[in-house]
This record gives sequence, C-alpha cells and structure tokens, in this order.
Amino acid sequence: MAPLRERSDDPVLPDPPPGPLHVARARASFPWKELALFWEGEDTLRFKKAIFSALENDPLFAHPRGSRLSVEKYQELNFLRCKRVFEYDFLPVGDMPGSLPRVLALIECLGMYDWSLAVKFFLHVLTFGSAIYSSGSERHLKYLPKIFSLEIFGCFALTEVSHGSNTKGIRTTAHYDPSTQEFIIHSPDFEAAKFWVGNMGKTATHAVVFAQLYTPGGQCHGLHPFLVQIRDPKTLLPMPGVMVGDIGKKLGQNGLDNGFAMFHKVRIPRQDLLNRSGDVTPEGAYVTHVKDVGQRFSESLGSLSSGRVAIVGMSVVNLKLAVSIAVRFSATRRQFGPTDKEEVPVLQYPMQQWRLLPYLAAAYALDHFFKSLFLDLGELQQGLLGKDQSVRQAELEREIHALSSAGKPLASWTAQRGIQECREACGGHGYLAMNRLGDLRDDNDPNCTYEGDNSVLLRQTSSYLLGLRARRGPGGARIESPLKTVDFLDGYADILDRRFEGSSPEDLLDSSGGQKLTLWPVTQELESQPSCQRWRVLGPLLDPHQLRGFGRVPHHPASPRIGTAPPLLAVPLAAYEWLVCYLLRESHQKLSQEKRSGKSDFEAINNCQLKDDAVALVDVIAPPDFILDSPIGRADGELYKNLWTAVLQENKVLERASWWAEFAVNKPVVGRLKPKL
Amino acid sequence: MAPLRERSDDPVLPDPPPGPLHVARARASFPWKELALFWEGEDTLRFKKAIFSALENDPLFAHPRGSRLSVEKYQELNFLRCKRVFEYDFLPVGDMPGSLPRVLALIECLGMYDWSLAVKFFLHVLTFGSAIYSSGSERHLKYLPKIFSLEIFGCFALTEVSHGSNTKGIRTTAHYDPSTQEFIIHSPDFEAAKFWVGNMGKTATHAVVFAQLYTPGGQCHGLHPFLVQIRDPKTLLPMPGVMVGDIGKKLGQNGLDNGFAMFHKVRIPRQDLLNRSGDVTPEGAYVTHVKDVGQRFSESLGSLSSGRVAIVGMSVVNLKLAVSIAVRFSATRRQFGPTDKEEVPVLQYPMQQWRLLPYLAAAYALDHFFKSLFLDLGELQQGLLGKDQSVRQAELEREIHALSSAGKPLASWTAQRGIQECREACGGHGYLAMNRLGDLRDDNDPNCTYEGDNSVLLRQTSSYLLGLRARRGPGGARIESPLKTVDFLDGYADILDRRFEGSSPEDLLDSSGGQKLTLWPVTQELESQPSCQRWRVLGPLLDPHQLRGFGRVPHHPASPRIGTAPPLLAVPLAAYEWLVCYLLRESHQKLSQEKRSGKSDFEAINNCQLKDDAVALVDVIAPPDFILDSPIGRADGELYKNLWTAVLQENKVLERASWWAEFAVNKPVVGRLKPKL
Repeated sequence: MAPLRERSDDPVLPDPPPGPLHVARARASFPWKELALFWEGEDTLRFKKAIFSALENDPLFAHPRGSRLSVEKYQELNFLRCKRVFEYDFLPVGDMPGSLPRVLALIECLGMYDWSLAVKFFLHVLTFGSAIYSSGSERHLKYLPKIFSLEIFGCFALTEVSHGSNTKGIRTTAHYDPSTQEFIIHSPDFEAAKFWVGNMGKTATHAVVFAQLYTPGGQCHGLHPFLVQIRDPKTLLPMPGVMVGDIGKKLGQNGLDNGFAMFHKVRIPRQDLLNRSGDVTPEGAYVTHVKDVGQRFSESLGSLSSGRVAIVGMSVVNLKLAVSIAVRFSATRRQFGPTDKEEVPVLQYPMQQWRLLPYLAAAYALDHFFKSLFLDLGELQQGLLGKDQSVRQAELEREIHALSSAGKPLASWTAQRGIQECREACGGHGYLAMNRLGDLRDDNDPNCTYEGDNSVLLRQTSSYLLGLRARRGPGGARIESPLKTVDFLDGYADILDRRFEGSSPEDLLDSSGGQKLTLWPVTQELESQPSCQRWRVLGPLLDPHQLRGFGRVPHHPASPRIGTAPPLLAVPLAAYEWLVCYLLRESHQKLSQEKRSGKSDFEAINNCQLKDDAVALVDVIAPPDFILDSPIGRADGELYKNLWTAVLQENKVLERASWWAEFAVNKPVVGRLKPKL
Repeated sequence: MAPLRERSDDPVLPDPPPGPLHVARARASFPWKELALFWEGEDTLRFKKAIFSALENDPLFAHPRGSRLSVEKYQELNFLRCKRVFEYDFLPVGDMPGSLPRVLALIECLGMYDWSLAVKFFLHVLTFGSAIYSSGSERHLKYLPKIFSLEIFGCFALTEVSHGSNTKGIRTTAHYDPSTQEFIIHSPDFEAAKFWVGNMGKTATHAVVFAQLYTPGGQCHGLHPFLVQIRDPKTLLPMPGVMVGDIGKKLGQNGLDNGFAMFHKVRIPRQDLLNRSGDVTPEGAYVTHVKDVGQRFSESLGSLSSGRVAIVGMSVVNLKLAVSIAVRFSATRRQFGPTDKEEVPVLQYPMQQWRLLPYLAAAYALDHFFKSLFLDLGELQQGLLGKDQSVRQAELEREIHALSSAGKPLASWTAQRGIQECREACGGHGYLAMNRLGDLRDDNDPNCTYEGDNSVLLRQTSSYLLGLRARRGPGGARIESPLKTVDFLDGYADILDRRFEGSSPEDLLDSSGGQKLTLWPVTQELESQPSCQRWRVLGPLLDPHQLRGFGRVPHHPASPRIGTAPPLLAVPLAAYEWLVCYLLRESHQKLSQEKRSGKSDFEAINNCQLKDDAVALVDVIAPPDFILDSPIGRADGELYKNLWTAVLQENKVLERASWWAEFAVNKPVVGRLKPKL
C-alpha cells in the first residue's frame, strides 16, 4: 500500500481545499499528513473520520450551536443526540478496556463537536457506570446492562450547595433501619441539597448519592456512596420524597442538565449501598476491610482521579480548537503593510506570533502529556481492580494523584488563557458568537472548578513534592517514582547549583542546557519556605511533566510502529522546544535574579521555523470544518466569504424588528417620568 | 443637619440589612457611609439613588437578565428601556456640559444595570450626537434636537468587515457628482461593508459613515464623515440602495443591535458631508483649512479619544460589580476549618485574599484614575471647541491620547482578569448565570477590542514616551506635560540609579521609598532597546497614572468641600498602597535582578487592615441589590437563602422535560446505525 500522503483521494486525510491558506501551507517544513499519521496513528485517524462523518451526515447534528438556542431546546437536542450516539455505537462497551486510544478518540470527537453532548454521554456511561462497577460489588452488576440499553439514566451526586471542596463536610445522611433493612436518605436542609450534578436536572433516573452513613445507635461511619432511584423511568417524574430540578442557566455547557436534589426520608434497600469499602449487615453492624477512616474516605472517592485526567484531555481539545481558529484567521486576515495598497497577514507580525504560537506549541505538548497520563491511569486502574497491594501500586496511585492534581490546573488554565488570547487576537470577529471562541471559553471554564478547584488541587501536588523532599534528606531514601516524573528531584542539590550560560536558541535547546534548566524553578520553589503563594507559582512551572511526555514520544501509544521515524518526531519536538524557550524567556527575570542564566537573546527564538509551520501544524490537529464550525477558521481560508455566508444565514438578519412601531409611532414624551432628585 | 452617617433613616445611604455579613462589617476600621460620601459626594450619591430607585420601581426594568432571554426579546426590551430613559430624562442634555460628575454617574448607573442599555443610549446621544456636533458645522445643528426627541436614531459607522485597526484602509467611497450636487456612497464589496456598528442592526435611521472622499477627476482626499440616512423613521425599513442587517449573536451585550451595511450607489446631498476638516464646493472643488492629510485624518477621528476614556470607566464599573459579588460571597461562604464542626469564611484564607484583594484595591485606584482622566478630557474638549491653537492645547491632546491609549488596555485587561478570578473564586456558584459574573465578563470583553485593540493601542503610548525621551537627551528640553503625568521622566537618570533597601510594608509605603520605585520599571523599560514586546510589559506597569490619580484625591471633583478630611482619605489610600505593595511584590524578581531592592518580606503585607476592611469597602462601591442582581452578592449575606429562592424562581425548574417520552418510551436500538470503520 502506498504511503498515505501519496493517495490524495484518500478520504481519511483529504487535501485541504484550495484557497488563500495555500500560501501559508506552502511554507511548512514538513508534510502535514505524515505528521498526522505519526501523531494519531492510522487506526485512530480512521476511527475519528468515521465518527466525524457520521455526525456531519446526520441532520440531527446540524447546527446552530447550543449557545444560540434556548436552554430548553438545547437540552432536548442534546438528549436526542446522546441517544443517537448509542445507536451509532461507535465503540461497544466491551471493547473499551482493550482499546484505550479509541476511548480517547471518542471523547475527543464528541467533545470537539460539543462538550454538552460528550459530558452527558460520559457522565452516564463512564462516571456513573464505573462508580457502580468500582465502588459496588457483585450484587450491583445487574445495573450495568441497563446503563448501556438506556433503561436507566445515571448521575454522580457528590457536591452540595454548601460543600464542594470540603467533601468531608457533606451533610446528606443515610440512617440504617434494621426493622425494614433499608437506608433512609435525607437532606437536613437546602444547604445540604445535592447541587451541580450533571444529568440530574431533567434526565437522570438513578443517582450515586454520597451520604454520611449512620448505624443504629447513632454512630457515623463517614461518607459512603448509595444508589438512589430519583425518577420513574416510565414517566421521568420524581420518586416520592425526592425534590429534583434543574439549577438553571450556566455560563456554558447548557445542553447538559445540571440539577439539584433534596431527599425527604427516602428509603432504599440495604443492598443499594455501594459496599466496596464498607457494608452494613442486615442487623445493622458496620463491617469494613479498611480500618482507617481517612483511607476509606479516599477509597470511596477514588474515581475522582480519572475525572481529573479526563479534564486535562477536555482542556487540550478546547485549546486545539481555539488555536486552529485563531491561527487560520491570522494567516488570512490582513491589516497594515509596507504600502497603503498592500497589507500583510497579521500572523506575520511578531506581536501576533507571541500571542498565538505559545498556545499552539502548548496544545501539542499538553496533548501528548494527556495521552501519556491516560495510559498511566489505565495501568493504575488495572492494579486497583486486581487488588494489587504492592508498594509500587501504592506509589503509582500517589504519583498519578499528584500528576492529575497539577495537570488539571495546568491544562485548564492554559486553555482558559489561551482561548481568551485567541478571542482577542481575532479582534471583533472573535467576539462574534458564530466563530465559536466564546462557546469554547465558556465550555472550558468549569474545567478550572469541578473535580477539585484548581487552586486547592495544586496544594495536593505541593504536599506530594514536599513530602518526597522531606524523605530525601542527608542519608535518606532515593527519590524515585514508578513513572519517573519526580526522579529529577534526586539530583536536587545539583539542579539548585545549575547555571545556564548560553545565549542563542540553539544553546537553549541543547538538552544539557536549557531544557534541564526548566527543572530549576521547581526545585528552587521547593527549597524556599512553604507559603500560601506556592499554588500560584507551581502551576506554570510544571514543565517536568511536559518534558516527560515528550521524552516518550517515540513510544507514542497510538503509533508505535512508526516510532522509528526521527525526522517526523523533530516537528512536534521543535514546537515543544520553542515552548520551552518561551517559558524560559518569560521566567528569564527569575533566572537572572538568581544568576542561573546570563544575558540571552530570547528575541532571536522568534526567527524560527514555527511561525511558518503554524498553519500546517493546525491542519494536523484541527477537525473537519463541520466539526470546527467557525466561519473564520475554515480550512480554505476564505475568511470573508465564509463569514458573509454565515451572517446571512442567521435568523431574520435583514428583517425589520418586530417592535418597529415602538420607534416609528410610539414616541416618548421626554421628561414625562422625571424623578425628583 | 446632622452628619449623614447618623441618620440611619436617610434613604440615600440606608443601613445594610441585618444578616451574616454583619460580622465582617463590624471589623472595618472606618465608617463606610463617610467614605461613600467622601468618594462620591452627596450630590452624586443622591443623583445615583434617584436613578437606581426609578429603575427598581419600574416593571419594565424587572429582570431576568439579558443573557437568559432570546436575542430578539432582549433587543426589544433594551429598546423599550432606552426609550424609557428618555422619559425619565435624568440629566437634560443642556445640563450635561455643566455637570460632568452627573454625566459620569449616569453612565455608571445605567452600565451597572446593563451595558446593553447604557451603550445603546450613549452611542445615540453622545457618540452619534457629538460626531455631528464636533465634525459638522452650523448646517448640521438641525439634527441635534431630533436626536433628543428620538425622531431619528443614530450610529457611528467606521469599521468595515476587513478593516478595523487599520482605519486608513477603509474602502467605502463617496464620489461627488456636481451635476446633482450629491455624494454617491458606495461599498465596492462585502469586505468593505460597515460591520460591528452598534445600533445599526435594527434601530438606527441615520449613520455617520466614514468614506474615502473623491472629487470629480478622481482625486481622493482621504477619509471623511458623512451623515447617511439608512432607514425610514416612519417604518424602520431600509432606504433604497441600503442593505442593512444585524451581524448576529455576540459573546455579550446582546441587547445592543450591532449591524452591518452595504451601500449601492446611495446618493446624499452635498450638505451632509460633515465638513469640519474639509468641504467640497457645489462645483466639486475640495477646500480645507488642514493641509496635512495625516492631521486631517486624525482630526476627523478625534472623537475616538473620548470613547477610550469612556471604556476605562466601563471597565471600572465591571470590576467594581465583580469584586462586590466575590468579596461578599467569600465573606459568607464557609469551607474547612479548625475542626470538622466549625468552618471559616473562605475570605479568611490567605489564598482567597491574594486572589481578590488586589482587584478590590485596583477597583478603587482605577475608579479615581478614570474620574480624573474624564475631567482632563473635558478640559481638552473645551479647548478644541474654542479652537485653542496654543502649544499647551496641542501637548494636552498628545498627553491625553497617550493616557487613554494606555489606560484603556490597563483598565479593560485588569477588569477581564479580575472578573475571571472572581468567577473562579466563587467556585461553581460563580459559574451559575444568575450570579452575573458571566454576563460581566462577556459584557466587558469587547472593551479589550473596540475603539482600538489593546495591544495596538499600547504602542501609541510607547511612541509618546519614547518621543519624550528622545527629545530630552543631553542639553535637550525639559520633560514636562500639561497634566504632569510624565514629568517624572525628567529625573530619568536618577530613577534608573534608584535602589530600595526597606524590608517591611511600612518601608514600602514610605513615599520616598516604595511608591517611587514603581516608576523604575517604566524608565528601565524605556532604557532598553525598543522591541515588539514593549506592548506586553508596559500595561501592568503603568503605575504613574494611578499614582497621579491618587495624588489628586484631596481635590476629588465630586467632593471638594471635604477635601480637608485626611482621616477618610487614609482608607482608599491604604487600599491603594496595598496595591502598590502587591504590584511590587509581583515584580520583585525584576527589581531584585537589577539590584533595585533587597530581600523584602512581602508576605507581611498581607497582615494589613485591608482584609478586614474588604466588606465595608465593597459597601461603598456596590449598587443596591436590585442593580447588582446577584443572589450570592446580596448585601444581607444570606448566601444560600438568596440562592435557593432564585433557583426556584427560574423557568420550569421542577417541571418534567417536555421531551420526557423520548427517554421513557422511544428507546434507542443500540448499534442500529453503526458506521463502517
């Protein structure tokens, strides 16, 4: 079979349509199709193409985009689309564990289309489903087929109106009544109402509800998950004693029905306690294999780690889409020029490059970090299910907890700032809803908050790193971890003494020079006294994760067979190295202050290939036009034609306002209502 | 008359309602009513109160907020409200020039209610009105009464689809035809369509259209403003040859109808050229008193400076509202605590203080900067109208251009980041639309773009400062300016040598130490080679403007009679000094790098009074609850009761979804549509 790039009729990677972007594409230093194949792997590319094509050819998925619909209409469409995804059955449930790259691709494809859809689908199938699977026991397996046939619809109900970050403070109660062998689920007041729960607003029939478990006699055994039916699947009306509703419009993701629920002494069978970490006998005795309350608590919340990893991926998708739009816009939008007659694309201005290229490079770096972390998480979960009690398993859990607790803030904040920068870099056209940057920003925003507030989460990684450092000390244990992400700390003292004397981009990119220097701020931060400011500083400096991710690019999971293609690896690596330069430049002052680096010509790094490769790099990560759904970001680069067509297709665009007579006839009497001052 | 603070029945400054915020208020070091009186002045307070009360008592202004309405409904409501503002006639047009503080207050009040309303009103009255007044001549005065009686409705049409920042590239043409004594207004193609024009979408009957003026023979005389009728006021239908419509949904301000227009050889009378900077005789000869094309161009665009100053004020209002919501939320939201039973308000955590207090302090600092700049602008405009040809007038114009070109980016970016930080600091509840942080962010966002892209604008201030420096040189002219904002540059060399050796907050606040140090980064920046990065660095460092503003607090325009009250001045000054400390702390690395400061205990500045004064400082700047319109930000601090009530008042909150049967009955056939991979 001929290499993919030579078959221009291949539907998986079609040539870009002709148009003004052609000029920018011609400047690229590499064949974008080869990089796409390298980056994703052929199987994943074909899988994504199949999903994208199915959505594009199905009228149910025709736009307009959600933010331009009423919330009610959007939620209805979103549910119908969710149901349709079951009918397409892109990835049968049974195949999921064995094809993690396809799971990733499915999340990415649905999310690129619309996060409301992806979140609705995965909250039901993965979050609700795996909470039952991993927190329950054999007696709960009967629920799983009902999830996949849509007999029931699920949600995961942890946070309450007055408790989010402090989950231990949750106040919903579950009192056991031995006389009927039931738990009584109760919300003492509105402050203890479950709140923000995705799918709970209008759809869910069942909820995994976290509540304080009390045995007869009044002893509290801490937070436990219970499976509670909240609506009748035959009518979608609430079950007796359940007050359930929609929390109202959010800043984004409005196709998803986030809800609240209050329970008024709702009785559920004893068996519906998800009893993996603790159970109650028919007589009312509490039994557990986990003696430590704290450990039991974290075991019952274990599934949150995968939520955080998923959010890293969601953020990366948003960043990819935003930079795709902004880079294509900037390569075709012309403003000013050498003469009054001739204007140049704004991407040729260094100002625009400094605004956008760091985020393009970050999209690649974080994309790989996410895929790598996702695979590590899979390994962790295999161990958990196999009841692996080894030291390595415990250390892997701690390491992944630390990685996801830092990775989620890093990715979600980078995406949030990046999308805003893209919005501004597209000027007024970026502020037009149809160009999608607003939806991307609004849909990404909760990534900074849910599954653990970013600022609070970063402290968990800080604790992990400080703990490692404390263990080291003179004569202490070697610092090493299963994934080797913290092994660099073993060379702690050496790194603190490190000094960088290069002055050119080449020096920076020399692996013995600049790249290793990115480790310095982390060690320096750990060396200084702990303070409330650590959370603020650590985030942007967590480069070791990115370094680690890229160090493993040759073993890219999705394309191991072309791991031997160094010329291709050079392209994303160059983007990554540019990012390292950029970050070093941003922290140049700190480095200079401590005499870690001399005077470097950081401006020079701008004269690199990245600006000429930008459009081709976007071609690799951008979905088809139908999915990207942004007139100013279409692949042909016919910026104004596409915008014009889209503007004219809007509702009643040229029509006179229905209230025209309020101006034309009913004139105001100026001063008629003048208030006394 | 007893001092205002002792009359608790005084309706202008009512006592806050009792509630959980009482505890935080009791910690304040000052009487908030006295500060409110000092900050605003009694006349302004009464004026604002009258406006707020009128809106609150008028059902037309009842919520829900715009983002929860359809665009069509929102635009209708917004027009009706705009008309109603004319009926209230809070500030008769004739009174405006003589009472600038009331003009400010009116903008602030309407903006605090809803920017869509304020912008619609002021674009018509001020932007359109003053464009005619200041760019036209006696023959155009007939239009002014029609503006105020709403006989016509106006808009200001400068930007085109393909030209925003580069206004010289605008392509709409106006060819003069002496045979009929008419101009022919024409858009060569869609790329030259006027675009983004506020009020043009559905409402405007007349537009000030900027077009390239051509005289017979084909000579182009550059951009000139023309008054063009675009709709029939009797029907609101387009005039012949005009294709006019709405550009579609934006990220925010959707009550405002932003529009586009293409002109197909539309003929207007010769007299409708706004002829202040250039005119055409009936025979077709071009006459002007301004020989230089560049100067003519900037004269015809002179009114943009006031737009930029207005945007500073808009940004400040948004920041005030956002910090009011977030500070009150944080003073009542409790999470974690010394024991499992006792939780403390999150505002007591240093992390939350570092997130919010800088923006609270910035709201005060920028508020004063804005008011001060607004008065300076008034002085400039008086001179322009009086045809002041003095050197001072020319220098004042340059200085205000530089101040507004830096002030707009500073204020709008500070507000944008501040609102996002407030959103995140309120966790999930900040993501709920009803709490308004999303609307504030979305309505503020265009402030970064319109009236000059922030990044592009900053370069204008850079040029101004670099120009001053170049003029100085050895034996050069003294650096001084009418408003004295750049006089510090005269001590350029001295500042560059400056060093700060203090180590405590007190040292920093000593006027001979820390405050002056804030000037250092500006001079240092100017000293280094100009680079494309200047725009990025200058923004956050433009403290001299803030310093200058606060240096003038005793002469606060709105309350000159209490300018002699030093104890009160101490409160905002303390907030400002805290901000200076914060900014110095943030730039500590840079200062250390160049040995400008030794090791300072910046953490200590957190142990200041500001955190205890925060809620009282918010009481001074927050509007009444009806206007603030955020359940989590109400003055009583009954966070959860207010939220609960608001959630239940939403539309169909407890109702079953209309599409329930799609789940309950129409079950999907899993795999029915399975695509071939």
